Amino acid sequence: MSGTERDASAYGALEARFRRLGLLSGAASMLHWDWATMMPPGGAEARAAQLAELALIRHEMLTDSRVGDLLDEAEAEAEADAAAEDGALDDWQRANLARMRRRWREATALPADLVAALSEAASHCEMVWREARPASDFVAFAAAFAPLLGLVREKAAALGEALGHTPYDALMESHEPGLGTAVVDPLFDDLADFLPEFLGRVREKQAGSAPPPPVAAPVAAQEALARHLMGALGFDFDHGRLDVSLHPFCGGSAGDIRITTRYDEADALTGLMGVLHETGHALYEAGLPEDWRYQPVGRAAGMALHESQSLLIEMQACRSRPFMRFLAPLLHEHLGGEGAAACDADALHRRAIHVEPGYIRVDADEVTYPAHIMLRYRLERALVADDLACDEIPGAWADIHESLLGLRPRCHAEGCLQDIHWSVGEFGYFPSYTVGALMAAQFFAAAARDEPDLWQAIERGDFRPLLGWLRVNVHRLASRHNGPALLERATGTPLSTAVFKAHLQRRYLD
Amino acid sequence: MSGTERDASAYGALEARFRRLGLLSGAASMLHWDWATMMPPGGAEARAAQLAELALIRHEMLTDSRVGDLLDEAEAEAEADAAAEDGALDDWQRANLARMRRRWREATALPADLVAALSEAASHCEMVWREARPASDFVAFAAAFAPLLGLVREKAAALGEALGHTPYDALMESHEPGLGTAVVDPLFDDLADFLPEFLGRVREKQAGSAPPPPVAAPVAAQEALARHLMGALGFDFDHGRLDVSLHPFCGGSAGDIRITTRYDEADALTGLMGVLHETGHALYEAGLPEDWRYQPVGRAAGMALHESQSLLIEMQACRSRPFMRFLAPLLHEHLGGEGAAACDADALHRRAIHVEPGYIRVDADEVTYPAHIMLRYRLERALVADDLACDEIPGAWADIHESLLGLRPRCHAEGCLQDIHWSVGEFGYFPSYTVGALMAAQFFAAAARDEPDLWQAIERGDFRPLLGWLRVNVHRLASRHNGPALLERATGTPLSTAVFKAHLQRRYLD
Repeated sequence: MSGTERDASAYGALEARFRRLGLLSGAASMLHWDWATMMPPGGAEARAAQLAELALIRHEMLTDSRVGDLLDEAEAEAEADAAAEDGALDDWQRANLARMRRRWREATALPADLVAALSEAASHCEMVWREARPASDFVAFAAAFAPLLGLVREKAAALGEALGHTPYDALMESHEPGLGTAVVDPLFDDLADFLPEFLGRVREKQAGSAPPPPVAAPVAAQEALARHLMGALGFDFDHGRLDVSLHPFCGGSAGDIRITTRYDEADALTGLMGVLHETGHALYEAGLPEDWRYQPVGRAAGMALHESQSLLIEMQACRSRPFMRFLAPLLHEHLGGEGAAACDADALHRRAIHVEPGYIRVDADEVTYPAHIMLRYRLERALVADDLACDEIPGAWADIHESLLGLRPRCHAEGCLQDIHWSVGEFGYFPSYTVGALMAAQFFAAAARDEPDLWQAIERGDFRPLLGWLRVNVHRLASRHNGPALLERATGTPLSTAVFKAHLQRRYLD
Repeated sequence: MSGTERDASAYGALEARFRRLGLLSGAASMLHWDWATMMPPGGAEARAAQLAELALIRHEMLTDSRVGDLLDEAEAEAEADAAAEDGALDDWQRANLARMRRRWREATALPADLVAALSEAASHCEMVWREARPASDFVAFAAAFAPLLGLVREKAAALGEALGHTPYDALMESHEPGLGTAVVDPLFDDLADFLPEFLGRVREKQAGSAPPPPVAAPVAAQEALARHLMGALGFDFDHGRLDVSLHPFCGGSAGDIRITTRYDEADALTGLMGVLHETGHALYEAGLPEDWRYQPVGRAAGMALHESQSLLIEMQACRSRPFMRFLAPLLHEHLGGEGAAACDADALHRRAIHVEPGYIRVDADEVTYPAHIMLRYRLERALVADDLACDEIPGAWADIHESLLGLRPRCHAEGCLQDIHWSVGEFGYFPSYTVGALMAAQFFAAAARDEPDLWQAIERGDFRPLLGWLRVNVHRLASRHNGPALLERATGTPLSTAVFKAHLQRRYLD
């Protein structure tokens, strides 16, 4: 399994090199974590330079001319081996080799000056965005965004050529191999048909009962409860941490998973749900196979699959009645106070599944979230294809938002300036959120089918049956298969909207 | 000043490469900080691998064959330039080039397999030491230490050949250029003559009055006071942090200095003095010239000079009567309680300068500390020269300790197993502590001569005169000169024991 054992072979030499790349990625990821959680403001300039240097070294190490030769050789060895009895690469090694080729192809597709120009334009645009968003100043944003968009189009075209995809598909595939427009379009079309009417029925049903008021609690008490819940879910604090950052995320590196959240003293449930969401990501990372820790095949299969693991924990398992029966006494015990005492399991559940169309994606509920994603998917696809000009974004955004959710943003801050993604040149990522939600529903249903005690265990706060199923059917497989293939293998059914829709029906209307 | 401005020249290309090395050092330093302060125990294995990879990349980048060629070219350019009017490298650039050559010489002196073997043997020996120390088990330690010592001797011989020094001198010079045995021997001989009799007189004088009991206080209150004092000293929390670790240190990277301490609820003064000590290190790092941030000439001049900056703050400025007059009301305000109330400035001062021979170096007072260092200096010098065998260490240690301090260690834990240095292959560092103490006395005396208001300002909690003097005469000069040369330039006198002895006389006997 290790490069040194086989280091006479081209494949062994590649494993050794990718181990070095994996270690450098882990180092960079830790420095990102520190940036978001610990770093004093004056450290930003040096940190940005350190991270850029680490990225440059990884790029040099990956695009070094020897890597192309080694890949050719290793692929030839693997073909020759396949005929022989002994010495053949096993399935994992073959999958690893394919992933290495893929990484190399993506890295070599982009000329170094384009990479540098993109990085610079993205840093600049993000800085402009940070000021333009609160000011709702689209004109200022567009001045920095237009040149970045031009570079993104160049990148997409170059990637597309290297991977044999259309430009936008190439961006999507770089986030989740196997997930391009051909897969996503029919899914999103189906949701676009289903959701508006469904939303109307949910709103009608919920109109009768206002959600209970939020539970207020001091940050220290919320944090203690969050740690308790993380432990119940299977998070190992010997191999990870929980901290605070402005935007919650899951980071860190192998054997040391760092998640963050933010607390709102006026509303404990929001912070807790954020912790549960990030814990889902963390459990996936912690469950990746140790033997393949630093190899491409040992990493997460893709961003949609990653999102499926957080949504499975937060949306499928925890925004449920059984979980709220487990949570209610803990909430009372840890948070105390009147608000907590008043919140029984039923009230908590009603609060957790309250549906209300709004402007802001990150605040959206499970039912309206896909609309926010479909909007962005349509627009970014048109932007990359050069079918939409930069200055047409606000109008197109408002029109689609209104058509999907019945609301028209009153300013750019609650419209097209709300997300960071485009301002840093991130295109093709948005679909992952909703594909992840579909996958989460399918995984959870399959786990519940295979583990009949699943819901009773969750109600007892026992997540071992769920985690055990995920370990075997998802986590341990890492990138052995791509996301959609892994889903089908684990659940017996291909990626579709059916299970997600059935879940919504059951949770919101039955 | 920057590599890009001159990147047609060999010197410019070197600056660009050393900038990359500097960024990678900063990244590694941050990951070390995280290891000591934040990392969960399960992260150690991955972190060790990340740090080893970063060290390997730096070594590859520095020993790359092009670097030798560039150094040759740049030195030739500099010589040619020196004759011309225009285009000559300025003094800083020349000093930088000399430092680059020095770094390259040290890095290329050691064959890669020796570096790897040393790193492995040191990791192993440190692990063994961590268990052998509490068990006082010298036999177990020696089994891991003997092979490491063999490798250290090889390293010292190779470095000595490359730098034109004896093996042990080469190790000393790699910690502080300009400080070898020829400089240190007469200083230490003089201290060995002076200190025993002086110690007797101090003990006699202090025998009459027992030091007041320690000040107990909760950790949170100690930390708040520590931050207040750091602020008064000039530490900028926008560019640094204070945290907790088992062994206090100053780390971080340019623009983001991270210091640590440990608190003892039963004795607030110990933790505070530790913070003041590390703040001295931090002020030096923060005061290094920004224009030379990532270049060898912009780094600290050496480890003795670094130690002089921490001892100047802790020993010279803060274990003084004027500082204790500033501290006493703050202690009362922050820590409250009976102990604090009872501690007036005079009692605090008596506690801060209480002298008592002991076994443990890190607990030693200012008067007995040099004995601990001289002991280690004699032994490690004999070990590197192969004049002392591994199994002779405990006996030699006990004999010298007894001769210098009148005490014979009762076990190896309070004898030769107490320090981590040798167990990680660190030889030639110990003299820095006492040379730093001599330098600190000289710097402080010069500052007091140049800033007549210095003591009155300290008594008011105003450290600006002191910091201002250090900025101009020490910090801003970085490695423009080596430590002893910088000291002479700043104070007007060469490195000697005279000022240190006068300081001891004044503080402990007058």
